Amino acid sequence: MWIYEKKLQYPVRVNKCDPHMAKYLIEQHGGADGELAAALRYLNQRYTLPDKVIGIVNDIGTEEFAHLEMIATMVYKLTKDATPEQLEQAGLGAHYAAHGKALYPNSSAGVPFTATYFQAKGDPIADLYEDIAAEEKARATYQWLINMTDDVDLKDSLTFLREREIVHSQRFREAVEMIKEDQSSKKIF
Amino acid sequence: MWIYEKKLQYPVRVNKCDPHMAKYLIEQHGGADGELAAALRYLNQRYTLPDKVIGIVNDIGTEEFAHLEMIATMVYKLTKDATPEQLEQAGLGAHYAAHGKALYPNSSAGVPFTATYFQAKGDPIADLYEDIAAEEKARATYQWLINMTDDVDLKDSLTFLREREIVHSQRFREAVEMIKEDQSSKKIF
Amino acid sequence: MWIYEKKLQYPVRVNKCDPHMAKYLIEQHGGADGELAAALRYLNQRYTLPDKVIGIVNDIGTEEFAHLEMIATMVYKLTKDATPEQLEQAGLGAHYAAHGKALYPNSSAGVPFTATYFQAKGDPIADLYEDIAAEEKARATYQWLINMTDDVDLKDSLTFLREREIVHSQRFREAVEMIKEDQSSKKIF
Amino acid sequence: MWIYEKKLQYPVRVNKCDPHMAKYLIEQHGGADGELAAALRYLNQRYTLPDKVIGIVNDIGTEEFAHLEMIATMVYKLTKDATPEQLEQAGLGAHYAAHGKALYPNSSAGVPFTATYFQAKGDPIADLYEDIAAEEKARATYQWLINMTDDVDLKDSLTFLREREIVHSQRFREAVEMIKEDQSSKKIF
Amino acid sequence: MWIYEKKLQYPVRVNKCDPHMAKYLIEQHGGADGELAAALRYLNQRYTLPDKVIGIVNDIGTEEFAHLEMIATMVYKLTKDATPEQLEQAGLGAHYAAHGKALYPNSSAGVPFTATYFQAKGDPIADLYEDIAAEEKARATYQWLINMTDDVDLKDSLTFLREREIVHSQRFREAVEMIKEDQSSKKIF
Amino acid sequence: MWIYEKKLQYPVRVNKCDPHMAKYLIEQHGGADGELAAALRYLNQRYTLPDKVIGIVNDIGTEEFAHLEMIATMVYKLTKDATPEQLEQAGLGAHYAAHGKALYPNSSAGVPFTATYFQAKGDPIADLYEDIAAEEKARATYQWLINMTDDVDLKDSLTFLREREIVHSQRFREAVEMIKEDQSSKKIF
Repeated sequence: MWIYEKKLQYPVRVNKCDPHMAKYLIEQHGGADGELAAALRYLNQRYTLPDKVIGIVNDIGTEEFAHLEMIATMVYKLTKDATPEQLEQAGLGAHYAAHGKALYPNSSAGVPFTATYFQAKGDPIADLYEDIAAEEKARATYQWLINMTDDVDLKDSLTFLREREIVHSQRFREAVEMIKEDQSSKKIF
Repeated sequence: MWIYEKKLQYPVRVNKCDPHMAKYLIEQHGGADGELAAALRYLNQRYTLPDKVIGIVNDIGTEEFAHLEMIATMVYKLTKDATPEQLEQAGLGAHYAAHGKALYPNSSAGVPFTATYFQAKGDPIADLYEDIAAEEKARATYQWLINMTDDVDLKDSLTFLREREIVHSQRFREAVEMIKEDQSSKKIF
Repeated sequence: MWIYEKKLQYPVRVNKCDPHMAKYLIEQHGGADGELAAALRYLNQRYTLPDKVIGIVNDIGTEEFAHLEMIATMVYKLTKDATPEQLEQAGLGAHYAAHGKALYPNSSAGVPFTATYFQAKGDPIADLYEDIAAEEKARATYQWLINMTDDVDLKDSLTFLREREIVHSQRFREAVEMIKEDQSSKKIF
Repeated sequence: MWIYEKKLQYPVRVNKCDPHMAKYLIEQHGGADGELAAALRYLNQRYTLPDKVIGIVNDIGTEEFAHLEMIATMVYKLTKDATPEQLEQAGLGAHYAAHGKALYPNSSAGVPFTATYFQAKGDPIADLYEDIAAEEKARATYQWLINMTDDVDLKDSLTFLREREIVHSQRFREAVEMIKEDQSSKKIF
Repeated sequence: MWIYEKKLQYPVRVNKCDPHMAKYLIEQHGGADGELAAALRYLNQRYTLPDKVIGIVNDIGTEEFAHLEMIATMVYKLTKDATPEQLEQAGLGAHYAAHGKALYPNSSAGVPFTATYFQAKGDPIADLYEDIAAEEKARATYQWLINMTDDVDLKDSLTFLREREIVHSQRFREAVEMIKEDQSSKKIF
Repeated sequence: MWIYEKKLQYPVRVNKCDPHMAKYLIEQHGGADGELAAALRYLNQRYTLPDKVIGIVNDIGTEEFAHLEMIATMVYKLTKDATPEQLEQAGLGAHYAAHGKALYPNSSAGVPFTATYFQAKGDPIADLYEDIAAEEKARATYQWLINMTDDVDLKDSLTFLREREIVHSQRFREAVEMIKEDQSSKKIF
């Protein structure tokens, strides 16, 4: 089970109303390679992964929920003071018509989140490569988002998140090599 | 952010291999009124709900993650020792072909989880009735599941979960009345 | 069965070409809390609801089809004289590429309607709270839409529709109390 | 708008509990070529079709709602007295876990209805061929369903519905030829 | 099996960066009536169609892959030199956030491709009318796209593709008459 | 463009009617890690990948279409002589109601194929890890399928396909290392 602690993993500094950028950040909230997909991927996989990597997967899955909260906080702060007209101009008129100013996990295009974005195969090598790919895809998304903003504070938060994905990718690469070694030694004896 | 604590909210006692029942329990894992939908519903809504109900919504959202873990644990325990043939006979052959023995959030029919199962409207009355409805629908699902099993231990866990939904429903009913009262007193002055 | 009567439930006065607003109105055509979802929700639920509320549910379901027709008529009138370029400027270029000027039930973002937006649980209390929530969510959408337009005639039609949702919500609240009373009296004897 | 008349278009005679067949009939309730898809297809298309075929499309769309009600009535009658165990044996366990005994528009496999099953293009020739195809596909589904049952009464209802689709297909073929003729004569002058 | 030949079926002349038009062309890449849906429709149907029409269906299905490649090439050429800001202005900001400049089969609105866009019924008449409808709908989409651009080169490629759909529609109409004749003569003897 | 050659990449020996196994094989036709997802993934990615890996991706994408045809042929041969009753007993009753004996790309559970199963990010490292993961997941699916059958001929075809995925995974691993090296040498100068 999880205990909620009322703080963000890393501070989110957003000092202005910028619904335009919020529209794109939503991709990491409920998009194909977003934080929700990541968290659910790892937390579903953990039941059938070998014991020695369950800890890594559980830790990273839990951290992705913290990232999800950071993204949600950014989106909320960037939009909370916007008028309906400003939301429309930012391409968030459809979001406002459907959800007012509430958060909702969809892609930047407005497609609701679906579990088809991730996989759990019950095969450790397949699952861990799925995880490396997930982290690399999230890294790419953060790069595209960084390319889309000039806001220094937002860039700082996004850079933090991108760096975490790189660290996770590295940990999953180590994990997959560990499992391959085990499998290979098992085949010998 | 959330801290993981390595224990279940309530013990899950499953002592036998029963993939047949696992197939139906999956409904509460990734189905329309399942625990994942519930957790995401509340945790998305909390940004735009009035301060006085954010705590309730945040607590219940966090508890639903604990329920999700209980359901996942049940499904895993009921299926982990099953042969492919036993999974097929239990109607889980399609699950095995796609996911081996891994957990994956879909409905009992095998339809992957989608965020369209829940809503966040940015209107407190609408969101809180959505929440009451969610709890009543989850209560009903637990009832249908209880009707489908004779396993005493499983019935005990499912009864615990059903009772929690009833408590949540009650808390959301109190919350909606609280908000209505506030709105009504605001209109007067 | 249903008999078609060639008139709208309430007159739709749209005297100008305004594809911009049409884009958002589509949310009530094929969106999550739109009139199609409402009609199908009630008409599916009616088979398993107790006799004493079937009439209410059947009437409201039938009325929602009339609302759907009003919304469709609005969208059609607001767009029928628009050039492709005007549709593009209004954010309806994707709609034009896919459907020309035809009506099609999707959300304002362009996501096709899905039955996952509503539920029928076969449990009267759960279904009736689902219905109250549905009406409150539709009320909220109409409010967001009213906030997005300055057109007096459109506001009039949307206000009519919003008021009907409030009436429906009230009727469903009465229905749920009626059923609760019945269930409670059954338990006594 | 539509007026509800409390009778079925054609009597549905179901005298026994047969959830097994209900599972397949659901295909015509909420499946790709089912009655809901048909009704929505025609009622959406009618706004942009030429005046001379709007009547046909509106009539047939309205009739498809009557067919939808017939199918729903069949499914309800075939399942209402079934125990959870009988529903499971008939492959409806997932339906029961999610919806109890309520009706819900999904495919026989349990995939919720989606508007992507039909199209409205805003081009009369395209829309009318879409409609012919829809009727032929529905005719085929009724044939497959007839092949799956030995129940004389059920066969009678399904044969009635299949025949109606053949009549509709014929009417749409006449409509498309009428429109082609018009277009061809317009090109001459 | 298929052999790749490194050339396009018909030259795609795109000499400028025009992401605005690319946004709409994507409809024919991964939209409801796009080239991917067409190719998969025919190539799935061919297994159960009568021998005498398998060749037609196989040829046209293979040609649709060539069309898909033409559309993809157009989209790629129109966007490859665009800055993120230009993509945003063209309504492709959500695409960039999710996919950078990669191609991806979704609709113009950004909804990922789904097989629910097409059907294979295992009934020759139904399948061939489905195919005629598909070609007519694709023809309509090309018309809407041609209406949206002033680019002479793009119009040329789109006109070529529209003409091919007309030819295909004609071939499918001949095929359906051929099958009807066969069925009718079979009934006689 | 692609040229069709009327032969299978590798012979498919199926000598008996076995709809039971066909139900599971469909997972590789239209499931999350099936051959259609694989082919579309690579053929979409190729536009934005570096020149030196486009050939690999194009070749493997084209080969996946050949695999798709092998799987479709297997499914067709295993089911073509089955009665409706045999299809029902094999869990393919829902498929028969919807598609007769036609092929259709859905998962083993009957969920229609969706492009959300794959990704194209426009970032070479991310795309190539996505590809390695895809091959490993397909390998796992083939393993689960092999575990589900005793048919020697079917096992032979499935083993061939599994081996091809292992070869592809290896080629993608080489490709990703090649790109990493290039990027690393670029950073130096």
